[in-house]
Amino acid sequence: MKNDHPLNRPRAIDSARALELRREIEEFNADYCATLDANDIEGWPDYFTDDALYRVTSRENAELGLPVGLVYAEGRAMMRDRAVAISRTQMFAPRYMLHVLSNTRVITEDAAGIRAQTAFLLMQTLVEGPTTLHLAGTYHDRFLRLDGRLKLAERQVVHDTNILANDLVYPV
Amino acid sequence: MKNDHPLNRPRAIDSARALELRREIEEFNADYCATLDANDIEGWPDYFTDDALYRVTSRENAELGLPVGLVYAEGRAMMRDRAVAISRTQMFAPRYMLHVLSNTRVITEDAAGIRAQTAFLLMQTLVEGPTTLHLAGTYHDRFLRLDGRLKLAERQVVHDTNILANDLVYPV
Amino acid sequence: MKNDHPLNRPRAIDSARALELRREIEEFNADYCATLDANDIEGWPDYFTDDALYRVTSRENAELGLPVGLVYAEGRAMMRDRAVAISRTQMFAPRYMLHVLSNTRVITEDAAGIRAQTAFLLMQTLVEGPTTLHLAGTYHDRFLRLDGRLKLAERQVVHDTNILANDLVYPV
Repeated sequence: MKNDHPLNRPRAIDSARALELRREIEEFNADYCATLDANDIEGWPDYFTDDALYRVTSRENAELGLPVGLVYAEGRAMMRDRAVAISRTQMFAPRYMLHVLSNTRVITEDAAGIRAQTAFLLMQTLVEGPTTLHLAGTYHDRFLRLDGRLKLAERQVVHDTNILANDLVYPV
Repeated sequence: MKNDHPLNRPRAIDSARALELRREIEEFNADYCATLDANDIEGWPDYFTDDALYRVTSRENAELGLPVGLVYAEGRAMMRDRAVAISRTQMFAPRYMLHVLSNTRVITEDAAGIRAQTAFLLMQTLVEGPTTLHLAGTYHDRFLRLDGRLKLAERQVVHDTNILANDLVYPV
Repeated sequence: MKNDHPLNRPRAIDSARALELRREIEEFNADYCATLDANDIEGWPDYFTDDALYRVTSRENAELGLPVGLVYAEGRAMMRDRAVAISRTQMFAPRYMLHVLSNTRVITEDAAGIRAQTAFLLMQTLVEGPTTLHLAGTYHDRFLRLDGRLKLAERQVVHDTNILANDLVYPV
């Protein structure tokens, strides 16, 4: 048994409550992905709390518990700077991104927020090019509720796919 | 901010109502995809209203707001003709199709119906061949309720994948 | 019409009840996939009843109604043996697996249990290698409720992808 695997925490939440939260998180993620897939990168930081953590890291590092990643942002101000920078860059390499999400798994809910995970595929289509798998991985999230709405206090994007830092220009 | 992006309309619907409709649409789409994936193409028009619009168009055209597409059907009669024609054709190129859907996003509900969008991957497996990504894109839908059941009044299949018209023999 | 297609059975269940069960099954599958994706193969048999049937078969065989498959296990004891054997083998070929599920379709509920189906993509990433599609297919399931929790009495993994038996070392 490897129930203590850092990427497979056992659920510790009432089933009815988990279902309720799952529906809300699914809706949140549908909006999040629609925003990014429409290339509205400047709208991306709005899904986070003011002091949220956003990190993109390989599964190898995540399983070792290493607090490093290819991309790292702490606080929405840093995300906004990043979003603006990307919005300027994207002129040079137009592409379409498309997120496809699997079932969301709600793990716990306590004073620190709601923890959940969702596997994703991120597809990329270059102009006149083929559609390829850009990144396969799992969101490991912590949500807080602000004014009745969910916000990401933490999104750790753990990717299975081997990728170069240069390829991670866009938010995932 | 690009909230006015034609493919990223902001949601304007009560959250509880959106959840309720989302569950119904997810069920509808599960049936729709199971029908097509079982190659029951003649069952496909039954998911639409009598005067429904079905269109397959590239994301490039959709973002420009161009009302054109590789495939176009107006009314279920046209879909039925098409379905029968395909049922005959398919003998010559047997293949398995498989739809994988992401989270459904419910956008609005008014007199014109319920608007929602769902990202999809459509996989294709040729006999003795590999499984490849046939089409990645998003359904942009408008549903109406007839006799208590949802029907598609409009399904705009907006595909990211660059594809030739010839490759779009089958309904998506 | 091919409504009698073995892979496209019509739904015969009250819509409200189908929605309720679907949410439960989605949660079950989220846990099931998280367990396998975390490589916790020894935790895999816990998702089944004592005398459950687990079978992996090609869509070609399934459509012909042939009761054969590349992988077959009857009873949780056989699954446990298999899981232990795999846990030893995996040292030699480390890889990451990632399941991405589409909408679950609940078909019937009667004395024999709850029948449902879910399309899936199973992605594989080898160390230093690319992420590739390992298997595309559909779970055809029968669930029973034991002590208030769902368990699989039957999981028939019907895969579209052409694959060699050797490639099916891991549970799907």
